[in-house]
Amino acid sequence: MSAPPIPQTMRALVLTAYDGRPESLRVQSRPVPRPGPGQVLVRLAASPINPSDLMFVRGRYGVRKSLPVVPGFEGSGTVVAAGGVAGRLLVGRRVACLAPLDGEGLWAEYAVVPLPQCLPLRARMSDEQGSTLFINPLTAWALLDRARQEGHGALAQTAAASALGRMLATLARRRGLPMVHVVRRPEQVQVLRALGAEHVLSSAEPEFDERLRLLFHELRVTLAFDAVGGHLTGRLLSAMPDGGTVTVYGALAEQECRIDPGDFIFHDKKVDGFWLARWGRGRFGREQLRALVGAATLMGKALETPLRASLPLESAGEALRIASSDMTSGKVLFAPSLDGGAQS
Amino acid sequence: MSAPPIPQTMRALVLTAYDGRPESLRVQSRPVPRPGPGQVLVRLAASPINPSDLMFVRGRYGVRKSLPVVPGFEGSGTVVAAGGVAGRLLVGRRVACLAPLDGEGLWAEYAVVPLPQCLPLRARMSDEQGSTLFINPLTAWALLDRARQEGHGALAQTAAASALGRMLATLARRRGLPMVHVVRRPEQVQVLRALGAEHVLSSAEPEFDERLRLLFHELRVTLAFDAVGGHLTGRLLSAMPDGGTVTVYGALAEQECRIDPGDFIFHDKKVDGFWLARWGRGRFGREQLRALVGAATLMGKALETPLRASLPLESAGEALRIASSDMTSGKVLFAPSLDGGAQS
Repeated sequence: MSAPPIPQTMRALVLTAYDGRPESLRVQSRPVPRPGPGQVLVRLAASPINPSDLMFVRGRYGVRKSLPVVPGFEGSGTVVAAGGVAGRLLVGRRVACLAPLDGEGLWAEYAVVPLPQCLPLRARMSDEQGSTLFINPLTAWALLDRARQEGHGALAQTAAASALGRMLATLARRRGLPMVHVVRRPEQVQVLRALGAEHVLSSAEPEFDERLRLLFHELRVTLAFDAVGGHLTGRLLSAMPDGGTVTVYGALAEQECRIDPGDFIFHDKKVDGFWLARWGRGRFGREQLRALVGAATLMGKALETPLRASLPLESAGEALRIASSDMTSGKVLFAPSLDGGAQS
Repeated sequence: MSAPPIPQTMRALVLTAYDGRPESLRVQSRPVPRPGPGQVLVRLAASPINPSDLMFVRGRYGVRKSLPVVPGFEGSGTVVAAGGVAGRLLVGRRVACLAPLDGEGLWAEYAVVPLPQCLPLRARMSDEQGSTLFINPLTAWALLDRARQEGHGALAQTAAASALGRMLATLARRRGLPMVHVVRRPEQVQVLRALGAEHVLSSAEPEFDERLRLLFHELRVTLAFDAVGGHLTGRLLSAMPDGGTVTVYGALAEQECRIDPGDFIFHDKKVDGFWLARWGRGRFGREQLRALVGAATLMGKALETPLRASLPLESAGEALRIASSDMTSGKVLFAPSLDGGAQS
């Protein structure tokens, strides 16, 4: 098959202010970028809206890029050009890719990506699944790796019904690690049960705190991963046995963590954080990344991300609203090849 | 001189409920306890109201003793009887003493104290100064020892105008450790300046957060001791360079610590806690304790606790109210030998 020619310009979602207003994220026409040495040009098929993207566009992420900028941290597509010899082998291949932390993102028809942040996709993996292959599997792997290294015998997590939460549940079960799963709505309990999760609690239950405390002590949970923040961080910490740690890796409640000072003072408990970008910088190079994501691909269905909707770039406002409102129903993706026309 | 005879009964402040109500802490007549092996009986001269005592009577301390119980964690007095041979050498001596964590406290005319928690006082040390010789000097020493062991090059603290805060300021200055001192009222700035402290900020200033951030980055503050909690814990943590830690050791604001989840996630910051009782259990025996408090005594004026009032046990309500309201003006002590008569 012959590839379509690369145009001079493309449609891209461009962020003009970190204020979270819909009019600050609009489709613009931009020149198609050219790959430099060690880079490839990818024609994007799909790019998800992750919680980290939502934080980024609101200016609450760990990195603020110079504006205007194209958001979108991960995606999938086809390599259509290479800036150097090494990349030429990838031309024509479908890849999963991760945007550079200091450059333009992937909510666009085309993007330049560093070669080490591209991973060829197997034929049976869809563009949609391939677009979520980096951030959640790597985060799940990194969090469980930390638990293993520190010798924790039982774990807990919040936002357990999210795509990442389901991966953590599946991986923990495979490793035989007892894990308590906290969801925020009673109907999400079934989502986790369907994955074979045994200990699932909804924080909306009236006896949640007491049940959590009993379960944490019975299983001896010493590490909890919290993607929510707000009061829930403190409720988790209070429920833990003395010496426990809560690791915050998300802020879905968009509120300050509220924690009883007595848990720090008298109960030797700690709160710290996890950020994939920091972990990645310190811990692995290209080879580790490939091995890791390769392993994630092999794991297949277990790590499959439920998908909810594929929308054109022109539907950014609607897409971000859906993605913010309910993570249990699956990921919302941009499909940059869809032409939204004047519908935005 | 001949010692007065030991009576059968004594006046003691007895806590009957952990509810913080004045009527739950009343003077009662109790039998004078008898020292067992390894214990001495102390006729108390002075016993301070520390923040840890205030937490204890409100049920917010790390230990809840069975009620009814006499509160009061430290004090000074004269040893009047011994339960074993070793203690006899102390009979007639003035001592500083620390109450057992699992028994009756020192807000009483007499108390039984384990021998290793008694330290003879030098003649020139007053009963009042002697009564505050354990908790604050040990806490200050332990906090700075941790900072040294972990290699922190610059520190910060809140509630810097408290008795303990002044000790930390003095000790840090002697060790040449840069330290940022945060007070909650502008008039407390002078208290720290008078001790030679260079970096003093009031959290009531309008540009507090920005000035704190600049100072923390300039001095590279990587560890802050927080005795306040509430919003201040989060403001401290946000002001720190990436990787910083706040260690909570008090909860004077009586509010949940409120912390931006982004500081945990993106900035590798942590919050943990310190409790003298836990540190003490793990770290030292009788000999270390004596050496440590001996050193504190030698340091003399630098560690002297400003005193505000000595009140009879019968004035418990007033005493606790004064102690809760303003720590800068000095410690409030009970002088159990004062007969409050019917004045309560």
